[in-house]
Amino acid sequence: MMSPPRLRTRRIDTRHGLVDLSHGAGGRAAAHLIQEIFIDAFSNPALSRADDQAAFDISAGRMVMSTDGYVISPLFFPGGDIGSLAVHGTINDVAMAGAIPLHLAVGFIIEEGFPIADLQRIAQSMARAAREADITIVTGDTKVVERGHGDGVFITTTGIGMVPHGIVLSASRAAPGDHVILSGSVGDHGVAVMSRRANLGFETELLSDSAALHGLVAIMVRTAGAALHAMRDPTRGGLASALNEIAQTAGIGFLIDEQAIPVRPEVTAACELLGLDPLYVANEGKLIAIVAPETSAALLSAMRVHPLGCDAAIIGEVIEDDQCFVQMTTSFGGGRIVDWLSGEQLPRIC
Amino acid sequence: MMSPPRLRTRRIDTRHGLVDLSHGAGGRAAAHLIQEIFIDAFSNPALSRADDQAAFDISAGRMVMSTDGYVISPLFFPGGDIGSLAVHGTINDVAMAGAIPLHLAVGFIIEEGFPIADLQRIAQSMARAAREADITIVTGDTKVVERGHGDGVFITTTGIGMVPHGIVLSASRAAPGDHVILSGSVGDHGVAVMSRRANLGFETELLSDSAALHGLVAIMVRTAGAALHAMRDPTRGGLASALNEIAQTAGIGFLIDEQAIPVRPEVTAACELLGLDPLYVANEGKLIAIVAPETSAALLSAMRVHPLGCDAAIIGEVIEDDQCFVQMTTSFGGGRIVDWLSGEQLPRIC
Repeated sequence: MMSPPRLRTRRIDTRHGLVDLSHGAGGRAAAHLIQEIFIDAFSNPALSRADDQAAFDISAGRMVMSTDGYVISPLFFPGGDIGSLAVHGTINDVAMAGAIPLHLAVGFIIEEGFPIADLQRIAQSMARAAREADITIVTGDTKVVERGHGDGVFITTTGIGMVPHGIVLSASRAAPGDHVILSGSVGDHGVAVMSRRANLGFETELLSDSAALHGLVAIMVRTAGAALHAMRDPTRGGLASALNEIAQTAGIGFLIDEQAIPVRPEVTAACELLGLDPLYVANEGKLIAIVAPETSAALLSAMRVHPLGCDAAIIGEVIEDDQCFVQMTTSFGGGRIVDWLSGEQLPRIC
Repeated sequence: MMSPPRLRTRRIDTRHGLVDLSHGAGGRAAAHLIQEIFIDAFSNPALSRADDQAAFDISAGRMVMSTDGYVISPLFFPGGDIGSLAVHGTINDVAMAGAIPLHLAVGFIIEEGFPIADLQRIAQSMARAAREADITIVTGDTKVVERGHGDGVFITTTGIGMVPHGIVLSASRAAPGDHVILSGSVGDHGVAVMSRRANLGFETELLSDSAALHGLVAIMVRTAGAALHAMRDPTRGGLASALNEIAQTAGIGFLIDEQAIPVRPEVTAACELLGLDPLYVANEGKLIAIVAPETSAALLSAMRVHPLGCDAAIIGEVIEDDQCFVQMTTSFGGGRIVDWLSGEQLPRIC
């Protein structure tokens, strides 16, 4: 009765191809792009079912869910790219609740004309980051917008994870007397991105600290248990913003010691050159932990055994303060308020 | 020891304000925007904790997760806006697995200069859609990109839900002999958006069918149980693309009857004017169900009682076909292959 359709088995040209609007439509080009770029890279049974949603079994318990958009510019930077960052960043947001991350969903918004080779590189970087973190990218979505209405690629990842029984981490649990532990040096990510953006050629290349923190978190949860009150990864807005947010939420203040905060000499130098304060510069592989004082020494020791916690330090404590200020004793022995960031210090850093 | 910081208690100007890059940084402006526009609208305990992730209790069982980016243009269209669409669309993707949707995460990517009043209108529309669907927006994220690097606002929503015990819906379960039920008329959403975009003034305004389908789905699951094999919401690419995707996944073909497919006369007329085929036009409140033939009559009756299923119809059946074609008997008695969409028929329709 019917004549067969013209079979346009157009494969994706991963060397010279560009994303066009047809890749965002519900047609054959979109199906090819999804299969050859994403499903091949992320390969797992849930994705391969090719339904519009993933299905998986879950045990009863406390789940966390977190979503983050990634609009970083440039897309590729020393120490990572938007793909690895989109995996690490959302894993970390899930892990900050003390949870074990399980699955990720990923949404791409791609600008027409974006090189397919770059998209493939990003997808493979995401796949590698997910594999290393033992987390599965179970479902995804791709949209394409016209040239000039996006900027290369934006990625939104959403993660879910399960919190071990009895663990309740929340900024609101920060209490006067608690110690503040920082897992390592601050400013690495932001400075690495800014130096690439400003085309600064430093002698020793600065690398982003982008990394998945859930392994370190698992050790911390095991060591400190209920004495671990809150965690936060100081991403955009840096350490200063993360502390201010916790202070505001918990209705407390902080007193921190500038000398105790690890900053790499190269980061200090680059910050002076770029006119930045490292306390406000984004990190993508660091965490702040608020812990009961009697447990902080044991927690610190446990953290230092992990590669991502080897420079961990106690940087201060929680104090009573109705005004929720973050105060800092400076290296010169004076004091200053580490205020909220006003304005945008570093746009599109994550 | 310290002088108090200047307290810039800048409130958001919801009448004349514009989003600027500071609203995407981790500072005070971002905190104000998130509190006054999003948390106030979406108000619920999980969001108000102001952590970077939501936590909630989950029972053991089969969970589904789905993510979708919304880049529709224009942002406001007859029958909805990007906010309500971003809630309905992701609820529907979760529901298509037979699941009861529970929670949504939402990520905004906003272009610098976007009116805050529009953002508030979108947030309130999302809140209303979520409330009506009895689903909670538990966590979110906001990014701002420079003027000319985005397009107003893009939204990515991610939903999770739980599948009732014993229900396994998947395109791969479509089997020869199964009946195909369509829940109502096709083409309404795409034509409503295109008519607004083309500034066509039809006498009777066409409205998008944007709606949350999980209530209808719950009835269908209860009625058909394991006889319900697969569901799909025919969004971008329309009915034609959804059927082709199922055919490809299941390794089967379809034989459908053009006369059985409900299309509103206004949609037919607009499609002729715009040069569109309603079978390829996006829907946002319709579903296709693949069901064992002995259960289709009962399922159809049950669907017709629900407001979103009152025009439901059996439109064809699954057939054996190694080539996975979607064949259609036309109104004139002839036949045609309903092929995959090639190229982008309607860019940014969702």
